[in-house]
Amino acid sequence: MPKAAKVIIASSESDSNMLYATRFFVPDPFLFLEIDGRKKVVMSDLEVDRARSQARVDEVIAYSRVTDALRAAGVKHPGMTDVLAHLLREHGVDEVEVPGNFPVQYADKIREKGFRLQPKPEPFFAERAVKTEAEIEEITHTQRSTEEAVAEAVEVLRRSEIRGDHLYHEGTQLTAEGIRKLIHLELIKRDCLGAHTIVAPGLQGCDPHQTGTGPLLAHQSIILDVFPHSTKSHYYADMTRTVVRGRASDRLKKMYDAVLEGQEIGFSMIRDGADGGEIHRAILKRFEELGFQTGEKDGRMQGFFHGTGHGLGLDVHEPPRIGGVKDILRTGHVVTNEPGLYYPDAGAVRLEDLVVVTDTGCRNLTRFPKQLEL
Amino acid sequence: MPKAAKVIIASSESDSNMLYATRFFVPDPFLFLEIDGRKKVVMSDLEVDRARSQARVDEVIAYSRVTDALRAAGVKHPGMTDVLAHLLREHGVDEVEVPGNFPVQYADKIREKGFRLQPKPEPFFAERAVKTEAEIEEITHTQRSTEEAVAEAVEVLRRSEIRGDHLYHEGTQLTAEGIRKLIHLELIKRDCLGAHTIVAPGLQGCDPHQTGTGPLLAHQSIILDVFPHSTKSHYYADMTRTVVRGRASDRLKKMYDAVLEGQEIGFSMIRDGADGGEIHRAILKRFEELGFQTGEKDGRMQGFFHGTGHGLGLDVHEPPRIGGVKDILRTGHVVTNEPGLYYPDAGAVRLEDLVVVTDTGCRNLTRFPKQLEL
Repeated sequence: MPKAAKVIIASSESDSNMLYATRFFVPDPFLFLEIDGRKKVVMSDLEVDRARSQARVDEVIAYSRVTDALRAAGVKHPGMTDVLAHLLREHGVDEVEVPGNFPVQYADKIREKGFRLQPKPEPFFAERAVKTEAEIEEITHTQRSTEEAVAEAVEVLRRSEIRGDHLYHEGTQLTAEGIRKLIHLELIKRDCLGAHTIVAPGLQGCDPHQTGTGPLLAHQSIILDVFPHSTKSHYYADMTRTVVRGRASDRLKKMYDAVLEGQEIGFSMIRDGADGGEIHRAILKRFEELGFQTGEKDGRMQGFFHGTGHGLGLDVHEPPRIGGVKDILRTGHVVTNEPGLYYPDAGAVRLEDLVVVTDTGCRNLTRFPKQLEL
Repeated sequence: MPKAAKVIIASSESDSNMLYATRFFVPDPFLFLEIDGRKKVVMSDLEVDRARSQARVDEVIAYSRVTDALRAAGVKHPGMTDVLAHLLREHGVDEVEVPGNFPVQYADKIREKGFRLQPKPEPFFAERAVKTEAEIEEITHTQRSTEEAVAEAVEVLRRSEIRGDHLYHEGTQLTAEGIRKLIHLELIKRDCLGAHTIVAPGLQGCDPHQTGTGPLLAHQSIILDVFPHSTKSHYYADMTRTVVRGRASDRLKKMYDAVLEGQEIGFSMIRDGADGGEIHRAILKRFEELGFQTGEKDGRMQGFFHGTGHGLGLDVHEPPRIGGVKDILRTGHVVTNEPGLYYPDAGAVRLEDLVVVTDTGCRNLTRFPKQLEL
């Protein structure tokens, strides 16, 4: 019977499966193997000591120990895949399971050496989607930092002076870039790193991928979507609020109320065993009942045209999804609940909270208030 | 004769070849093709408009246009590699060249569809190592921000009060973590992002991968190694300084002078056509002449046991290398020059500047002073 190993070659800094497998931060690519349920890492001499004290694995092997053995056996310039092949043969392994993003340059060499190599679709570690209490604590910690940073931004908006269409704070005009920088500074103070933070004024918010640029506008929607990770634990959080400095139009208020209601549908349906696809369709249906149609109009998408939610952990987007397709939620999943409505004639509204799926429902990890007008 | 295309599937946020190819920031993976010297990207509907205005490519293709065509032709659930295969066939391409880190899950599918796929070793874009004037400007811009941030940190160290072995500033004890945070905050203010910034007190600096932790120590070496990238251009900079708050030991001073001299050897030898290996060996040799041996002692590496330098650009480490192996420098390469000496009985010294290789020598992009004792 063939014997299989799980293998990753990656930096744990850029690859969340590697970080999940080892809980050890290394900026350069290294080798991870799981054979017979035992986790091993192969580290350069520079990292061996740190790995032995920090990596949550069963064995730390010095890369140079293997290359020395290979050189003694006549291999001239042993490389990463020679080291891997040597260890696999030592354990009688002939099949290798790798993540889908495993580099083809290594895959080709491993296959040339006679191993059967097969990429496994995500989740590479099935258990990764279900968070432990410790993981939920880390996510909550990042979420609190996120809320504190957003609170600083909202406070500046609230205290800002309206002059014509624009906003001024302590004599300076408020811009998307300025508020983004303020949020990033507040995050860094809390050992969190934000990137692509969305501060989208007015109609810019109607493109959900637009991070936002230029002056913030009075009496118009401003979307704040903040999804940093902790530089200590690397766990993400994710929250979106929509605010208006000044007076919101009636149409925008109705959109806001609809999104609030949509989010409540999410909260009420999320539980162990629920199908993300059904939740998403229930929200879409309610939006349509309220007169908010989704579809292409005048060459662009309008209404509610993104997913309702996504799993989150060491990546900002992980399985499961709450969206167009069937995906069953399980107790311990941490997912976002983020319906939105986007109409170029009115503005953009999105509200996003983070919840843990439980046996009977869900627990909201988000504490930040929801208030449209500031 | 076979016809080849260059292909990348990656996010330009996490993959510098993709960013180099398109100059367009996208957090999610997308498809890049270069056929007959023409660059094309295939973007989701959400990104098509932004790509048309920002991506430096010859053609932006809507993903949905291709999937619509495929569905009309009977393909049930067309995916990324179906879209790629369709476009390759349209252009009569049968060979695909991909970067070494190309995901095996896509590589397998492309090969199954009958294409010859070959990973190309780095540099995937040969021209990437030679920087344009505009690129050198961006690197210099990040370097200036780095220097300003390090200046703030050095000023805090300089003004700190020595109490016993420790340092205090405005009543607070100075730690590696505190100074790192200060540097990161100053970088964010300048639209730069630092990670793994090294602030290594005393003997911690003897492990060049140690980022540093705990109280900063008076009269001992403190290594500051800062290598952020601009969040606007994504170009990196890299600088290391070694300082002592208080009095350095005679041995540490001698090490500092030797490293200064080693760096001068680098400056004098770096030029178009020079071999990085020769430069590295010349510095090692001079260190040995000065009595600073390199090698393993008491189970750990001591002396000068890392490379002299590395290329830098959209990645912090790029070709070429100035180290143990032959690598020819060319006009327009931007490389670091960073010799160091590490002895657990004395401390750690590393000095790192950033230079552009020229026809006749090199131009130092670094302006920050070198001063051991503060």
